[in-house]
Amino acid sequence: MEDEPSISKEITKSTDFYIGILLAVCSSLFIGTSFIIKKISLTRLSRIGALRAGAGGFGYLKDWFWWLGISAMGFGEILNFAAYGFAPASVVTPLGALSVLVSAILASKFLNEKLTIVGKLGCLLCILGSTMIILHAPKEEPLENFNLFLSKLQEPAFAHYMICMVVLCSAILCCLGPRFGSRYVCVYITLCSAIGGITVMACKAIGLALKSYSVTSLLSYPTFWLLSTIILIMAVCICVQITYLNRTLDLFNASIVTPTYYVFFTGFVIAESIVLFREWELMTAGDMAGALCGFFVTVVAVFVLSTSKDGHQQTRHLGVNTYFAVKS
Amino acid sequence: MEDEPSISKEITKSTDFYIGILLAVCSSLFIGTSFIIKKISLTRLSRIGALRAGAGGFGYLKDWFWWLGISAMGFGEILNFAAYGFAPASVVTPLGALSVLVSAILASKFLNEKLTIVGKLGCLLCILGSTMIILHAPKEEPLENFNLFLSKLQEPAFAHYMICMVVLCSAILCCLGPRFGSRYVCVYITLCSAIGGITVMACKAIGLALKSYSVTSLLSYPTFWLLSTIILIMAVCICVQITYLNRTLDLFNASIVTPTYYVFFTGFVIAESIVLFREWELMTAGDMAGALCGFFVTVVAVFVLSTSKDGHQQTRHLGVNTYFAVKS
Repeated sequence: MEDEPSISKEITKSTDFYIGILLAVCSSLFIGTSFIIKKISLTRLSRIGALRAGAGGFGYLKDWFWWLGISAMGFGEILNFAAYGFAPASVVTPLGALSVLVSAILASKFLNEKLTIVGKLGCLLCILGSTMIILHAPKEEPLENFNLFLSKLQEPAFAHYMICMVVLCSAILCCLGPRFGSRYVCVYITLCSAIGGITVMACKAIGLALKSYSVTSLLSYPTFWLLSTIILIMAVCICVQITYLNRTLDLFNASIVTPTYYVFFTGFVIAESIVLFREWELMTAGDMAGALCGFFVTVVAVFVLSTSKDGHQQTRHLGVNTYFAVKS
Repeated sequence: MEDEPSISKEITKSTDFYIGILLAVCSSLFIGTSFIIKKISLTRLSRIGALRAGAGGFGYLKDWFWWLGISAMGFGEILNFAAYGFAPASVVTPLGALSVLVSAILASKFLNEKLTIVGKLGCLLCILGSTMIILHAPKEEPLENFNLFLSKLQEPAFAHYMICMVVLCSAILCCLGPRFGSRYVCVYITLCSAIGGITVMACKAIGLALKSYSVTSLLSYPTFWLLSTIILIMAVCICVQITYLNRTLDLFNASIVTPTYYVFFTGFVIAESIVLFREWELMTAGDMAGALCGFFVTVVAVFVLSTSKDGHQQTRHLGVNTYFAVKS
């Protein structure tokens, strides 16, 4: 009889994990779809003669279809946010790759962007890599509630990590960025990813708080202010991320930016999980190797998908499509 | 004290597995290298003005370097053969993909065949897929010795499997082959793979016999004749395989034949492992999913590697290299 609470706790933990995975997958589904809906809306508007968004037009704001896309994206982000409350961050973040998969498949269905054989291989790899990441993820969450999270923040590891991040971000903002930012894609991507890691941590904190507390205790004295500070930090982080990601997208091709960002962002979140949340302490060496394999397969998939998609639009004259049309 | 023999048996089993993996990896190393050595020899001969092999020349028979290549290949095949005696067939066969990796890397080093970015991705995927296959392989060998193997042959599953194979091979040889063999690459590849599966079974039998018996009992009455029959069957199978693989290579491009053969051959060996050796009974659902992911990643890798390698030589005019030279 003594074992019963621990068994039911085990079951809750494992259920939590699968809820988290489901939320993360649904989130990717909505975010991937939102790209396509927005693009369909913009194409439709340009066809009826409205001024294009790229040329400074705002006609899309009057299109209900565009707003549907934005809503899908918002809903996807909320689901993603919720996923961090249930499953380890080192699983939820890499699963973001599925949104690239969803948008590649939908683009071939609804935007008549023919999926090349390379694109199809990318889709397959994306699914295989994600399956492996889920297979090898730590099924138990070391951070069960908000209090445990707060106790982690008081450990020296957190202070050390934050000092490193502040030094890194300042170095990029003040010195490396202006000098090398327009020449190397990694510079601002590192900044976005480092700050993205902090955003994930904040998401995790809020998710855990919403899961562990009732409304009244959420509004009670220390918790309320603590949560407000975390939300503020998160908002600032998201703004910085969006600003510098847009700057990078302006300077470099999306086919380079998307996979690089995916790798760096996931890398920072995994580093964080190791240093702060110790998520990997629960894993065997085999699981670590398997999860890393899954991660690298997904990296290749994201690289291939973004290259083949962009390649279709921008490098047709270089013959990559001819090549695969001949082959297939 | 009672547990001691079973513990030492466990250790032997696990050591056997890693010996098998090591043998399979070394085998791929030798076979991969042998392709390059033979090619270097042929290139060198054509440079000094000898009649090319493709045009009917036999000058290579006098070149010690060509013989070195043949020896490397033979030695590799022997190691591969030995690997089947130690590790499950469903691990040893897929690891054959590593020879494609080795020859791609060595070709870029010694034959000046520049490895494109797609080729590099293929190499990475090959390593990742193979790692996953090893991670998820059943670590215990259900067939410990030759007697167990013989008892498996008396089960109805073996008879059913052999009837299916005979029907399939006869259908291809008599009816499907002459009609569709020159139009579809799968026809003769299916024949080669089905017969290849039987070769693997024979290899396994001989490997187990060499492992379990002393020389005197190998030469004793029933075993000697049984083994001779198995060796004869194996020799016939290898001849049929080589004949029809060469016919397919004559009809189709190697970049299509290599990955197709890899997929079909490994597929038949895995089917055999399931039906006859029940290797997968020892695996959990997670391990099965992981091993399948690894297999498919390796399939993509072999496809990418053979396409990019051939692409470099044959499809330069289609611009695939230009494309990646611009990208990288």
